[in-house]
Amino acid sequence: MKRSLGPRALLYPAPVVVVGSYDPAGRPNAMTAAWAGVACSQPPCVAVSIRPARHSHRSILERGAFTLNLASQVRVREVDYLGTVSGAEEDKFAASGLTPLPAGCVDAPYVAEFPVALACLLRHSLDLGVHTMFVGEVIDVLADDEVLGPAGLPDISLLRPLLYSPGQGAYYGVGPRLADAFSVGRGAGGR
Amino acid sequence: MKRSLGPRALLYPAPVVVVGSYDPAGRPNAMTAAWAGVACSQPPCVAVSIRPARHSHRSILERGAFTLNLASQVRVREVDYLGTVSGAEEDKFAASGLTPLPAGCVDAPYVAEFPVALACLLRHSLDLGVHTMFVGEVIDVLADDEVLGPAGLPDISLLRPLLYSPGQGAYYGVGPRLADAFSVGRGAGGR
Repeated sequence: MKRSLGPRALLYPAPVVVVGSYDPAGRPNAMTAAWAGVACSQPPCVAVSIRPARHSHRSILERGAFTLNLASQVRVREVDYLGTVSGAEEDKFAASGLTPLPAGCVDAPYVAEFPVALACLLRHSLDLGVHTMFVGEVIDVLADDEVLGPAGLPDISLLRPLLYSPGQGAYYGVGPRLADAFSVGRGAGGR
Repeated sequence: MKRSLGPRALLYPAPVVVVGSYDPAGRPNAMTAAWAGVACSQPPCVAVSIRPARHSHRSILERGAFTLNLASQVRVREVDYLGTVSGAEEDKFAASGLTPLPAGCVDAPYVAEFPVALACLLRHSLDLGVHTMFVGEVIDVLADDEVLGPAGLPDISLLRPLLYSPGQGAYYGVGPRLADAFSVGRGAGGR
């Protein structure tokens, strides 16, 4: 018998993304978010939700572009900092020592020190309540060679991204590889 | 210098959710998806993307409801099975030995053996390309006592959910707790 916890936004795990954008004055900004995910395989789209009061919200709407940067777990302090201060009040790149570089293909900066960046064009914005969900089409994925596996795509065990546990307010790392997908459960109903 | 990988739907990690719905004939069905995430804190909303050809797609649109079920990693075989077979061709609950129970507050079944279920009312559907993104408002969260922490909310280290690594086609577990959010990076730019 399950216990009712009421209406809550709980999903485990949430990814930890750092959203890069240029503000109306042209200054690069970065904020951390966890309400994010893949939205479509083709065209490749991702979604990230941001409160209207956040500095990045207006920036993304005005420029029609953003990046999602994936940090390795060794960067947990910088990532947490980027989620606790507003870019309207502080130059977060300068304060953190991180480097904004222009994504090139879209009008948004990415974080040089983080190993993967998704460069996105804003396709939809959906006001859901306290958050607006931005859906971006991924125009390019930029990645450091050090996190690429044999197939030339990121290997999560090399990337070592952060996870966020809602309700607990804590970051976790990625654990061991458990099984191949579309394989381990084939036949006999997965039993 | 980063390498360009081209336009790809890559975000690490993706959660692994099992979507519960009743099909047009009233039969409970469950399918595994990884393109999902939290969309809004208040009202609490989640998003999950499903291809139009999938049996669950029509079910969700017709009933206007679905559940997102979070399995513990010990259920990786059943979860993988639920993502590899269509509910149009097979009674996946019967084949897997899993039990569908009515969510009560919404017109959708949840999976009794999985420790957390989000009962959702469909609020938006957005056709993005090969996937439709469904945004559901979470009406209730149902959870087993065994996965609840001291605050009465799920503890990710007790829940032990599955992660999916896009591009690698593999499931991973959750690793160690690294730091408290909104805390570890405060001050000095997180340095």
